[in-house]
Amino acid sequence: MPDDLASFAELDLDRTARRGYPEAVYCEGKTPGQVAAIAAAVRDRPDVVTLFTRAGPEHATAVLGELPDAWHDADAALLAWPPQPPPPTGGLVVVVAAGTSDLPVAREAMQTARYLGRPTELVVDVGVAGLHRILAQLGLLRRARVVVVAAGMDGALPSVVAGLVAVPVVALPTSVGYGAAFDGLAALLAMLNACAPGVAVVNIDNGYGAGHLAAQIAAPPPAGDV
Amino acid sequence: MPDDLASFAELDLDRTARRGYPEAVYCEGKTPGQVAAIAAAVRDRPDVVTLFTRAGPEHATAVLGELPDAWHDADAALLAWPPQPPPPTGGLVVVVAAGTSDLPVAREAMQTARYLGRPTELVVDVGVAGLHRILAQLGLLRRARVVVVAAGMDGALPSVVAGLVAVPVVALPTSVGYGAAFDGLAALLAMLNACAPGVAVVNIDNGYGAGHLAAQIAAPPPAGDV
Amino acid sequence: MPDDLASFAELDLDRTARRGYPEAVYCEGKTPGQVAAIAAAVRDRPDVVTLFTRAGPEHATAVLGELPDAWHDADAALLAWPPQPPPPTGGLVVVVAAGTSDLPVAREAMQTARYLGRPTELVVDVGVAGLHRILAQLGLLRRARVVVVAAGMDGALPSVVAGLVAVPVVALPTSVGYGAAFDGLAALLAMLNACAPGVAVVNIDNGYGAGHLAAQIAAPPPAGDV
Amino acid sequence: MPDDLASFAELDLDRTARRGYPEAVYCEGKTPGQVAAIAAAVRDRPDVVTLFTRAGPEHATAVLGELPDAWHDADAALLAWPPQPPPPTGGLVVVVAAGTSDLPVAREAMQTARYLGRPTELVVDVGVAGLHRILAQLGLLRRARVVVVAAGMDGALPSVVAGLVAVPVVALPTSVGYGAAFDGLAALLAMLNACAPGVAVVNIDNGYGAGHLAAQIAAPPPAGDV
Amino acid sequence: MPDDLASFAELDLDRTARRGYPEAVYCEGKTPGQVAAIAAAVRDRPDVVTLFTRAGPEHATAVLGELPDAWHDADAALLAWPPQPPPPTGGLVVVVAAGTSDLPVAREAMQTARYLGRPTELVVDVGVAGLHRILAQLGLLRRARVVVVAAGMDGALPSVVAGLVAVPVVALPTSVGYGAAFDGLAALLAMLNACAPGVAVVNIDNGYGAGHLAAQIAAPPPAGDV
Amino acid sequence: MPDDLASFAELDLDRTARRGYPEAVYCEGKTPGQVAAIAAAVRDRPDVVTLFTRAGPEHATAVLGELPDAWHDADAALLAWPPQPPPPTGGLVVVVAAGTSDLPVAREAMQTARYLGRPTELVVDVGVAGLHRILAQLGLLRRARVVVVAAGMDGALPSVVAGLVAVPVVALPTSVGYGAAFDGLAALLAMLNACAPGVAVVNIDNGYGAGHLAAQIAAPPPAGDV
Amino acid sequence: MPDDLASFAELDLDRTARRGYPEAVYCEGKTPGQVAAIAAAVRDRPDVVTLFTRAGPEHATAVLGELPDAWHDADAALLAWPPQPPPPTGGLVVVVAAGTSDLPVAREAMQTARYLGRPTELVVDVGVAGLHRILAQLGLLRRARVVVVAAGMDGALPSVVAGLVAVPVVALPTSVGYGAAFDGLAALLAMLNACAPGVAVVNIDNGYGAGHLAAQIAAPPPAGDV
Amino acid sequence: MPDDLASFAELDLDRTARRGYPEAVYCEGKTPGQVAAIAAAVRDRPDVVTLFTRAGPEHATAVLGELPDAWHDADAALLAWPPQPPPPTGGLVVVVAAGTSDLPVAREAMQTARYLGRPTELVVDVGVAGLHRILAQLGLLRRARVVVVAAGMDGALPSVVAGLVAVPVVALPTSVGYGAAFDGLAALLAMLNACAPGVAVVNIDNGYGAGHLAAQIAAPPPAGDV
Repeated sequence: MPDDLASFAELDLDRTARRGYPEAVYCEGKTPGQVAAIAAAVRDRPDVVTLFTRAGPEHATAVLGELPDAWHDADAALLAWPPQPPPPTGGLVVVVAAGTSDLPVAREAMQTARYLGRPTELVVDVGVAGLHRILAQLGLLRRARVVVVAAGMDGALPSVVAGLVAVPVVALPTSVGYGAAFDGLAALLAMLNACAPGVAVVNIDNGYGAGHLAAQIAAPPPAGDV
Repeated sequence: MPDDLASFAELDLDRTARRGYPEAVYCEGKTPGQVAAIAAAVRDRPDVVTLFTRAGPEHATAVLGELPDAWHDADAALLAWPPQPPPPTGGLVVVVAAGTSDLPVAREAMQTARYLGRPTELVVDVGVAGLHRILAQLGLLRRARVVVVAAGMDGALPSVVAGLVAVPVVALPTSVGYGAAFDGLAALLAMLNACAPGVAVVNIDNGYGAGHLAAQIAAPPPAGDV
Repeated sequence: MPDDLASFAELDLDRTARRGYPEAVYCEGKTPGQVAAIAAAVRDRPDVVTLFTRAGPEHATAVLGELPDAWHDADAALLAWPPQPPPPTGGLVVVVAAGTSDLPVAREAMQTARYLGRPTELVVDVGVAGLHRILAQLGLLRRARVVVVAAGMDGALPSVVAGLVAVPVVALPTSVGYGAAFDGLAALLAMLNACAPGVAVVNIDNGYGAGHLAAQIAAPPPAGDV
Repeated sequence: MPDDLASFAELDLDRTARRGYPEAVYCEGKTPGQVAAIAAAVRDRPDVVTLFTRAGPEHATAVLGELPDAWHDADAALLAWPPQPPPPTGGLVVVVAAGTSDLPVAREAMQTARYLGRPTELVVDVGVAGLHRILAQLGLLRRARVVVVAAGMDGALPSVVAGLVAVPVVALPTSVGYGAAFDGLAALLAMLNACAPGVAVVNIDNGYGAGHLAAQIAAPPPAGDV
Repeated sequence: MPDDLASFAELDLDRTARRGYPEAVYCEGKTPGQVAAIAAAVRDRPDVVTLFTRAGPEHATAVLGELPDAWHDADAALLAWPPQPPPPTGGLVVVVAAGTSDLPVAREAMQTARYLGRPTELVVDVGVAGLHRILAQLGLLRRARVVVVAAGMDGALPSVVAGLVAVPVVALPTSVGYGAAFDGLAALLAMLNACAPGVAVVNIDNGYGAGHLAAQIAAPPPAGDV
Repeated sequence: MPDDLASFAELDLDRTARRGYPEAVYCEGKTPGQVAAIAAAVRDRPDVVTLFTRAGPEHATAVLGELPDAWHDADAALLAWPPQPPPPTGGLVVVVAAGTSDLPVAREAMQTARYLGRPTELVVDVGVAGLHRILAQLGLLRRARVVVVAAGMDGALPSVVAGLVAVPVVALPTSVGYGAAFDGLAALLAMLNACAPGVAVVNIDNGYGAGHLAAQIAAPPPAGDV
Repeated sequence: MPDDLASFAELDLDRTARRGYPEAVYCEGKTPGQVAAIAAAVRDRPDVVTLFTRAGPEHATAVLGELPDAWHDADAALLAWPPQPPPPTGGLVVVVAAGTSDLPVAREAMQTARYLGRPTELVVDVGVAGLHRILAQLGLLRRARVVVVAAGMDGALPSVVAGLVAVPVVALPTSVGYGAAFDGLAALLAMLNACAPGVAVVNIDNGYGAGHLAAQIAAPPPAGDV
Repeated sequence: MPDDLASFAELDLDRTARRGYPEAVYCEGKTPGQVAAIAAAVRDRPDVVTLFTRAGPEHATAVLGELPDAWHDADAALLAWPPQPPPPTGGLVVVVAAGTSDLPVAREAMQTARYLGRPTELVVDVGVAGLHRILAQLGLLRRARVVVVAAGMDGALPSVVAGLVAVPVVALPTSVGYGAAFDGLAALLAMLNACAPGVAVVNIDNGYGAGHLAAQIAAPPPAGDV
């Protein structure tokens, strides 16, 4: 496929700058050459934060070839440029991973929120099978402006967390599990039916979307609020 | 449809007596006349407990016409005859209903276990959105030989309970909910993917099956165990 | 089913007061008698706002029998007591209904946010088949702290709105449609796959959940935000 | 599997010539040897256009071994012979790809329409998250006799385009996306429920079918129309 | 729900007039009062054709109360006003119903095409189980500019018809059938996988959409075609 | 996994001999060592026909190591031993493959019927998109005692064939197709909803089952028939 | 809808007579008036057996109005005319109903086979939960030329029966059950995956189709068999 | 991903010791480095049994590097440490594998129960297609306190076994099969709809969960039972 930018993509960096949020380049389904062409195009705009998400090893190499100082979180399959996130403003975003296997997606959410300018914290391995683990984090959870909860399998943790805090919970289903987990469908359905109100669901494994949404929720309030 | 017993059913009361568990007549899909014919047939066998499950008002009238002293729990859509359950033996069966709407199914489970000869307790409205409610029942839960947990919507409660007790949990999904609850499918999938081990799942709204299974688990142990 | 409160529900009005959000009584699956018992129980606590959701005509009659001055929005199948919502604080919640048939669910969302204390606006019949209709509302949309978008059928409107505003969009799929709409599944899936970031999805027809989430997002920020 | 043509396929080139549309050989599921045998068979009929669709690298090599001057669009996984498309007649077919990842399928549609004899144009990266991009193409869209819209994820673009033009829109769902995109199912359902009339849906990733349908719609009108 | 037009709908009759196609009012999910309000609003615009689709008996009464001379096809659950369709232009639209039970949906398609200004023909009971029936209609089918094929159950007829004609086939799955027909899903999937090219699929039971699409396909060609 | 026969399988060759049908060894999911052990065990029983189905290259090598003269149809992934099928008795089994890609499954059906002792014929590439192709085979079809029809995609061919013959049709859905073919689900559903009676459906890609069923249907009639 | 025959149906009684099987009129989805018109049309052809299937009370009244001596099995929702079935020829068709609730569908299968001219037997309430019940019928089962097995819920009985007999088993899934039975889907899938070969599956609740298929399998063999 | 334990997991060996059941480490989705870190952490606690489940070859190597004497069942993809299971107490756990392909999952169940301290027996290749095979095991089955039944395809065996014994049956669906087996879904649904009571279902391929549940059911009864 041709790699000249105009033939496959239209970047709108000015609009991104206006909106105040980074441009995100979804690498899956793009060739390394296409990703490199985009990376080259953003090099002249260090005023705009650009995220490269779902970036496999070949995508990462392509980005780093054009932007050698880009920040790379291989676990989260994410790169960011410029490498330094903006200074944190707004409320605290706490990201919770129910199990170890949920970590990659949780990290993608956390990094996204961080590069969108929020203070973040990450909590791991606090599934509902051992309630004392999540209860031990109650202090941190209650300091948050929004909590992102990544969980696979039964997807039960967002319901529990939403019952413990007054702020919104972003429920992030993961494809962790097997059999009747149906690649995250079980967790997704459980979260959509959370018996506690205040749960905002995103797509399976969509760490970027969860982090973006959390950053918007925790943003410094716009003018006009009472 | 003809109502003479031989043309539509074969009762095996002797075998039931040998197995030690009641005969159950599933009324849904049978005509009141068929149910009455079965009720008449069991009248001569007061040594055998018979349950009539999923019995709508017309089925109940049919049964009570033949067995006027049958015990009727209209909420659970269940009748039992003889009306007096056997004296309780074996371990305690605790039945938990996550919400008020789960009560009918939970009651069906509880009554089934009671008529199969187990001591039972019923706990209501202890969903995971308010953890203090289930935690307040910890003493009771830990006295059980088996816990039946009825829940719809996100189906999260069995995972939480299984993490709190050492005995098996019978997870009983209910069709309570709407939209992406898909008539109990969301709860069913969550329970099949419970992140705590020790969860035994039955069909959606199958209170009878859950109660039967619980009664078997809590049965006095057969000879030969160490 | 018995109607004495202790046998089927545990209210926790103090905790509700602490959390700052109303108690909600989900009427579907409860008998009118049960709903009346709950209504009677909250009569002594005018300091707590109580919502009765998914209340059919019989439920409404039961509530009004105990709380004659309760506010009743029959279109939204919702009652509130005390009838007067709290004075609005926090950011503006704009609720958008894609089509006329989405109105009942959209109204449920709007009323919920209003009784949770937010200023609200409602916009109707602005589906993507005629883009000029939603574009004509751009001014209002950009004053919002959060936008709730109710849509059935193709569920395309939240993607479009999320591309037009910088704040979170709560995507509320409705069961409007037929055939391959699969009672809202098509809209739900489309919203989970929104190509614009910043979309928070709730269950199909869950107007209450969407309104609650929106009210939390638009809440006056807690202390500690930068 | 044997590679002699009669044992696995029956070509009907005369009928194809009568219908006026190319013969298409669907390569997936055929061995390279089978594809080569078909290629050899069409070599004597340069009066008939033949398309080889879903042709992987090995299929392409097999075709080019028999028809060295065949035209090969590797991105679209398509070969055509004779290499020169017929002179364009009928109305304009505009093919729109919502995102970069939808390009291969969109190109398959465009090439098919081109080799069926229509004038074509291709537009890329105009998803609904940035409405200004599709609105900027309004002039081109309104010159079309039919518009093919390829989109994955939320599948929202065909609804929007169908609201902007008076001609039919061929909605071409792609498997682009992940999680609840379910390999194109979400896009497919959205398109089947498009809230604008005039949308013709084809199978997921069926670029050939979309291009063929578009070419038929934009064909010079048969005799007898008023 | 209030019945004043502005509170629930925004009509755009001028735009409709410009596009050249009727306005359609989807009655399902609207109250009779709302439908009556819309009917009253269009009374002043006899220059615009308005269709009322999926109109049950109460909806029909509401429309006829405001527009007593509206044309009413009760089988198709459709009303049209002004009652006289425009003089037919463009190519012939042939509507085929596989079985008797598919007739209502097929009639909705045919009436829609007729009120959009096309000449139409209707063919009934020509399912693939008796091929001679559809083959007997070959002369008529080959005079069409587009063929609409309504079929439930196995949905096989569009594939067969598309193999017999050179023009596009609009495949209209119906919910006729039971069991694994899954309310039209089986027919829908079969049509999406039609082994003949040139098949345009619409939603299950969407006679209006099929007729509209067919009318657009058979429209007099716009200027600019070669 | 241990390869000694008793630890993983129980053969019942005597029973097989009594039933008159070959033993079939389903190789998928067995190790080559396990398959070799079974092959060695049947070597002493040349009076019993044994089929090895779904045998990949490694399975085939394992079988041929023990039974070097076994007959191997690599396209059908099937081996048979003894290599010579029994002399044909009973009615004719005609196996029809809709397209070239359906051939492997169709051959598995044909070989199974042949080794169960029936006369067989194979017909290829006669899909419904070109009706003249199947109509040209009418003479052969009407000589059959049973017709097996293998088809993927829209699965329309069994309906058409069942309308042309008086004998049963075994409908064999294949996983040929993509997108909304859902690995054969579309074809399966179409066949279950065939609008002609007399269609017997088997599992997707289950050539062995189709051939076995056909051989039973075409078996010489047992004593007692009128 | 108009009730004159030509506007909604095309009967082909001559072809029916040639094929040797009755014409079947599927009443569901037809109006009583349409059914009556068909009944009137067949009155002149007592040489052809006609079945009216899925005939509700109103359909039955319509048929009996025209054909007062038609045979009516209300349980099976079926009418036949002329009332006397043909003298039985061919092999024995044994129809097995797993439970009492499966009886209506099983009777539809049995009556269909009887009116297609086969000797039939019906066996009831022999589900796999009590194996002795089906084993007690082994003598009868082994006299059959084909066995129809109707079962809902787990759909396990056809697998068991197919392992006990040498002839084909027609597996007839019923919608008996609830919850995860999904209206017969669980039984359907189990039957498609029967671990014994020789199982022919038909649609859920399709008693007519099962009986027709069984009658064809058990038909007197056509000339030409060895 | 970092391999220091605190960054990705929280072990709770004391709680495990209190509960009396081993800690289980689910290896799928963890890196070998993470698994090795956990293995190293448990080395100091030989008083606690630790199971490593779903351990591929690389996971096994990682565990054995830290715990060289760990017991490894490669077929079951399971390791245990300390290598010696506890002395058996409680009732007998019989594990039944319907077919050879179900063995790996059945072994996982059996090993889990053994390391949780129960006496176990394993039975293989006793599917319902040959009832004599399971009936030959009746003596063993009736000595069990609980029976685990692993089966794929039609999932019929648990229903049959539950009808033969008085104790609970743990139904363990496997992903064995193809086509409409849908990776174990068919077996799962059949088991949830078992027509015999007393069936406890776990997730597809969840041998660990089945073994754990069985061990709990067969545990020595807690004090307090009658």
